[in-house]
Amino acid sequence: MTLAIGVDIGGTKIAAGLVSETGQILDSVEEPTPEDASAIPVAVADLVERLTGEQDAVGIGIGAAGFVGEDRQTVRFAPNIDWREEPLGQRVQSLVKLPVVVENDANAAAWGEFSFGAGEDTDDDLLLITVGTGIGGGIVHHGQLYRGGFGVAAEIGHMRIVPDGILCGCGQRGCYEQYGSGSALVRDARERVLNEDPRAGAIAALGGGDPSRITGQELTKLAKDGDPLAVELLTELGRWIGEGAAVLATILDPSVIAIGGGVAAAGDLVLASVVEAFETHLPARAHRPQASLRLATLGNEAGIIGAADLARVEPV
Amino acid sequence: MTLAIGVDIGGTKIAAGLVSETGQILDSVEEPTPEDASAIPVAVADLVERLTGEQDAVGIGIGAAGFVGEDRQTVRFAPNIDWREEPLGQRVQSLVKLPVVVENDANAAAWGEFSFGAGEDTDDDLLLITVGTGIGGGIVHHGQLYRGGFGVAAEIGHMRIVPDGILCGCGQRGCYEQYGSGSALVRDARERVLNEDPRAGAIAALGGGDPSRITGQELTKLAKDGDPLAVELLTELGRWIGEGAAVLATILDPSVIAIGGGVAAAGDLVLASVVEAFETHLPARAHRPQASLRLATLGNEAGIIGAADLARVEPV
Amino acid sequence: MTLAIGVDIGGTKIAAGLVSETGQILDSVEEPTPEDASAIPVAVADLVERLTGEQDAVGIGIGAAGFVGEDRQTVRFAPNIDWREEPLGQRVQSLVKLPVVVENDANAAAWGEFSFGAGEDTDDDLLLITVGTGIGGGIVHHGQLYRGGFGVAAEIGHMRIVPDGILCGCGQRGCYEQYGSGSALVRDARERVLNEDPRAGAIAALGGGDPSRITGQELTKLAKDGDPLAVELLTELGRWIGEGAAVLATILDPSVIAIGGGVAAAGDLVLASVVEAFETHLPARAHRPQASLRLATLGNEAGIIGAADLARVEPV
Amino acid sequence: MTLAIGVDIGGTKIAAGLVSETGQILDSVEEPTPEDASAIPVAVADLVERLTGEQDAVGIGIGAAGFVGEDRQTVRFAPNIDWREEPLGQRVQSLVKLPVVVENDANAAAWGEFSFGAGEDTDDDLLLITVGTGIGGGIVHHGQLYRGGFGVAAEIGHMRIVPDGILCGCGQRGCYEQYGSGSALVRDARERVLNEDPRAGAIAALGGGDPSRITGQELTKLAKDGDPLAVELLTELGRWIGEGAAVLATILDPSVIAIGGGVAAAGDLVLASVVEAFETHLPARAHRPQASLRLATLGNEAGIIGAADLARVEPV
Repeated sequence: MTLAIGVDIGGTKIAAGLVSETGQILDSVEEPTPEDASAIPVAVADLVERLTGEQDAVGIGIGAAGFVGEDRQTVRFAPNIDWREEPLGQRVQSLVKLPVVVENDANAAAWGEFSFGAGEDTDDDLLLITVGTGIGGGIVHHGQLYRGGFGVAAEIGHMRIVPDGILCGCGQRGCYEQYGSGSALVRDARERVLNEDPRAGAIAALGGGDPSRITGQELTKLAKDGDPLAVELLTELGRWIGEGAAVLATILDPSVIAIGGGVAAAGDLVLASVVEAFETHLPARAHRPQASLRLATLGNEAGIIGAADLARVEPV
Repeated sequence: MTLAIGVDIGGTKIAAGLVSETGQILDSVEEPTPEDASAIPVAVADLVERLTGEQDAVGIGIGAAGFVGEDRQTVRFAPNIDWREEPLGQRVQSLVKLPVVVENDANAAAWGEFSFGAGEDTDDDLLLITVGTGIGGGIVHHGQLYRGGFGVAAEIGHMRIVPDGILCGCGQRGCYEQYGSGSALVRDARERVLNEDPRAGAIAALGGGDPSRITGQELTKLAKDGDPLAVELLTELGRWIGEGAAVLATILDPSVIAIGGGVAAAGDLVLASVVEAFETHLPARAHRPQASLRLATLGNEAGIIGAADLARVEPV
Repeated sequence: MTLAIGVDIGGTKIAAGLVSETGQILDSVEEPTPEDASAIPVAVADLVERLTGEQDAVGIGIGAAGFVGEDRQTVRFAPNIDWREEPLGQRVQSLVKLPVVVENDANAAAWGEFSFGAGEDTDDDLLLITVGTGIGGGIVHHGQLYRGGFGVAAEIGHMRIVPDGILCGCGQRGCYEQYGSGSALVRDARERVLNEDPRAGAIAALGGGDPSRITGQELTKLAKDGDPLAVELLTELGRWIGEGAAVLATILDPSVIAIGGGVAAAGDLVLASVVEAFETHLPARAHRPQASLRLATLGNEAGIIGAADLARVEPV
Repeated sequence: MTLAIGVDIGGTKIAAGLVSETGQILDSVEEPTPEDASAIPVAVADLVERLTGEQDAVGIGIGAAGFVGEDRQTVRFAPNIDWREEPLGQRVQSLVKLPVVVENDANAAAWGEFSFGAGEDTDDDLLLITVGTGIGGGIVHHGQLYRGGFGVAAEIGHMRIVPDGILCGCGQRGCYEQYGSGSALVRDARERVLNEDPRAGAIAALGGGDPSRITGQELTKLAKDGDPLAVELLTELGRWIGEGAAVLATILDPSVIAIGGGVAAAGDLVLASVVEAFETHLPARAHRPQASLRLATLGNEAGIIGAADLARVEPV
């Protein structure tokens, strides 16, 4: 059996896992992300060393949020870590023996879902839409990651879906993630409280009564308990996700669309409205096969599993 | 030298050409598209036979508007010809000796531009945006056509760019081609005349004075002659094309974007505003390499050239 | 008791009534609208003469669709009848003895509702939103019709609510009536059938199975019978009406908003979503008194009743 | 000659003036707005007393930002001062002898422009659009202020012009003032700098090189000096103002629309694009008289002049 190591560098923690060729995590370790970005390579190397059985692995795949160059070594730009044209791959490589590849984290997760998760019944293609604080995405086509001409494809969270729409941290307006993400859900819930919507009683009690502390998890729980406004807000969230998915399908024509990230926890509560909006907005739907829309299955581990697998099947 | 035959089935005419492996059309013939769709295969076979030197070709590539199945033989649905799940490839195959492949016409054109036109300096990837009556598109990635999971990718004319926007013939609202196509240009010019815009004097004189007969060619000529409103309308058209191109680049990250179709005749008059809108709306532009936006170079022959080449390099 | 005569000139019929000072119609007559617009004044005079008791009236008020000049005699422009700067008042006046005033039909209806219908509990102000084939409106403020500086105020059906939205017959895009009218409802239902929405089974059976013959009445009945897609379409219609009403309230701050026209027949099925959308979209709702949203009560007779009353209380 | 006193309570200063019946300010005084809202009535009374000749005035009109009740005494809600259902009129009245009326500040300014400024050639109606940090407005119709059913009409800065648009401080999305105000102008300029727009060189040098300190005045000056991007941003601002004005004219049909506030300083640089957008977007423009669009003429003093005049002509 060929093993590989996957590393997921997030804004708050770095997690690493030893992954089998069937996508099982055999051992895993994690630690907080160092505040000093220059300490990250050492932290990654330490984590790799702590994995039991790491000596049997054939490579290390690192997933990181940001624009990864087509060399699969350089992080051109990261939204949450102070990296500009950072040679992350080489820095880690100088500290470890196994070959290192770097991948965009959502791409790695898409590959994980394609290989071992929501895409197990397809060997051709899959689109992953990860809905968390923002929206990320990854595209697999003809059994390969689609990285684009410069390595920065699938930045789907920033496709514009509303002209002159809500301002995004990226400097543009109307980005998908301003409507279809967990942050959008929480923002809308807060607005309802602040505008004294009479139906917002139960939502107003969340976050210990402080609207700025309301969380997506709380809203999801409230909706599952049947609170009408929470259900409406999640339905609206699903509608936006589905309308964006229809745009993506018009361009990419995936056979499988997997919805991952924190929102997947809401399950059918969101998925039903995603599917309805998707079907309503897909052009010429009566004349084309339709993508299978489903929840992702690997949860937070998709990135580690996918990164490890990419190190095995697509070494630099 | 390996020759191949390319056929372009349009709504008004069918054109065929014998194409060299360097993308030169050595001979070409055409005839009107039969009104009876069932007569099209015979017409195609006739045209092929009339090409001088056809016996030396290795295959026939047919480009047709519509959804082409992943078998590259069947037209699932065509917007302008009465085809539903039409086995076009087999029908032509039964009348000719050379192997036949069918391709979406915009995909074929994208392949032609990638191989011999606007993409001659890249061997990796290109996005073609064809702006004519509608908007078509084709994606090349890693040196291959991107067809999607069901063969119907790159229907970019129908990506929604305005929620609740202008109704499209496809049944949806806000499709890209309702804002960025030649038809949109003509429609907007007509509106100005009908609303008695005082600046629309010169435009009102087009079409022999009949607003319903104004054409995009006339408007382009008027703009080239400096008519302020015509210039404004073409600038606005370019703005929409560029904003849509920014959405596509966010998802696809092409290194080359070629603008083809009739609008290319307007040249810099449109391209300048395409580029400005593209750059203004591309997220995180300061942190990523930027696609080269340029005019397509093969004109109407891109489809024939591309279809022929696909028959050579990607036989069924 | 002071009587007055109200006349409502529609695209298909002309109706006239003798109206008491409490807004009761004591006698009424009607006939088809002549195809030749120049025959309309004679038809109006004939109808007036046929009313039992007309000799006791003090004046004639005529409601007509279109832009009515501030002289309350001239129709500047009518969308459905071939009138341009038509001296309708004078033409009728030359055929009858009673003094004649002309009013925009929706203004007349607003006055009727204000005086005797939905506004009976206010003597200050009311906004009428008439939702039929299109959307019309009338504003009453400080106990008077608000006609604007040129007599063409309250063309609310053409306020833009979606930039770059659906094309309107008026030449603009995104007009309120393209989203919130009965025509919009029917159009959306047809689209669902044509796009083969699997939930559109019951709707597809309307109009004798011919989507182009589906009517708003049929859809309303279907929704009342519980068909989920018909309910959804009416809810969506109500949402648009309510969002537009919130824009109007931001500008006009009415204390009563009455919803009239054919859509009123759907009752709570539509009104509930109108109210929800209105409340959700009204700025600073927690800090202001809120308009009372309600159904109009006079039905099709609002125009006749209002026009008659205006002839009595506001003679030229 | 009848004199009256006008007071303008702003977020940073309170100004008072003695105003003649021809709208001349004969004397004026001002002081900073007290941080403690409860100290404002005393400050107002002090200012009144300091005016030379105040004993000859017949009344005091106070303009304040916020929702003013139909009693013309109570401020229901103010966006920048901590007032909720504040009996401002009575509090000042207890400190002064002259009768006091309170008016929304933009309404007062509209009245001032109508009586002595941009509306001097009309005695019927005027719409004022004040474009400063936000957008305010006031409506005069039939020679009277239009206050609405609850006193809070003409909150035009918060009419929604973009569904799902930019978030507004009011809790809603897509409000007019998020697109057509000075704040919108500055925000857009900053975005261009932060996105490293290559044309933004001159703008980047504003604010002492700190994008967060760029001001509208600086941008206007730069545009007057011919900087292409500054001109483009002001043109875009004018376009939004004009499109909103077309919506307002569809509803209100004013014969005069005056554009006031800080943006008026940009003069034709903005007004030309306001007029073009207005005319392009006004429905059925060929069939209706068109409002005269012009700059306001009273500048910052419109509020004081209007408030004083309202105290004279419309005492409580």
